[in-house]
Amino acid sequence: MAVTDLKSLYVHTLRDIYYAEKQILKALPKMAKKADSDTLRASFQQHHEETKVQVERLEQVFELLGEKARGKKCAAIEGIIEEATEMMSEIEDPDTRDAAMISAAQAVEHYEITRYGTLVSWGKLLALPAATKILDKTLQEEWATDQKLTKLAESRLNKEAA
Amino acid sequence: MAVTDLKSLYVHTLRDIYYAEKQILKALPKMAKKADSDTLRASFQQHHEETKVQVERLEQVFELLGEKARGKKCAAIEGIIEEATEMMSEIEDPDTRDAAMISAAQAVEHYEITRYGTLVSWGKLLALPAATKILDKTLQEEWATDQKLTKLAESRLNKEAA
Repeated sequence: MAVTDLKSLYVHTLRDIYYAEKQILKALPKMAKKADSDTLRASFQQHHEETKVQVERLEQVFELLGEKARGKKCAAIEGIIEEATEMMSEIEDPDTRDAAMISAAQAVEHYEITRYGTLVSWGKLLALPAATKILDKTLQEEWATDQKLTKLAESRLNKEAA
Repeated sequence: MAVTDLKSLYVHTLRDIYYAEKQILKALPKMAKKADSDTLRASFQQHHEETKVQVERLEQVFELLGEKARGKKCAAIEGIIEEATEMMSEIEDPDTRDAAMISAAQAVEHYEITRYGTLVSWGKLLALPAATKILDKTLQEEWATDQKLTKLAESRLNKEAA
């Protein structure tokens, strides 16, 4: 699809984040399995459930726009997940690996925050209030998840690794 | 370098963001050149100057830790910049291209925010107050840049593309 105006750029970005969410959906159970801390494992499992809903919301937005829900390969999320996978398999110490996985999960969160933030800004300019309301719900969830991860990073978990 | 504890993970992450900043340093002048809006061009140029200082700060932190300043290839920032470059060359409409570049710049900012945020959290746990103070300065600058870009995204610039 050629990007010729803000509307087509919006759809392009929807496809980018749709692809990213699908990759995240695949990565989270692997991260949960590798987590040593019960709190961290529960956090990844909860975010996995949330991500399923976020994917459905994107499908709702595609439908509202009369567009087919499909993803577009996104080099950014692939790079972020590649780094996470590398760290997960290379670090042997469980506490250090947990710290690295929290950091990787926060990189994922910030990628989602920036993309949803952009879609919410553009949605206002394009007068798409229904889509914007749906995507803003996800944006607020991503901020909350990031804050939860920061607390985890500064709590017991990383202290064990220090 | 093997990551065996939080300290070596910290140095590993320093190398990741050092590599990322160097890539950003190369990308920003190209983005400034492509910017149609004068405000956006000035913003990229200003961020280029800031990035030079942020690289120097990382070198100070390496020195404080007695480590050689060197980068580690980072797939995440490469993916983010690859997407940005693709959009910059593919979009012909100047206003739409500016909107896409703001979005790309915000993805870069959020990558930096997540990495510096992690280093600041770990720096506290590792009792590295001098390094933490230096990196927190950069973290605050990245947040400010991101907010400036959000304002640009919601202002005149994107309205022209809408």
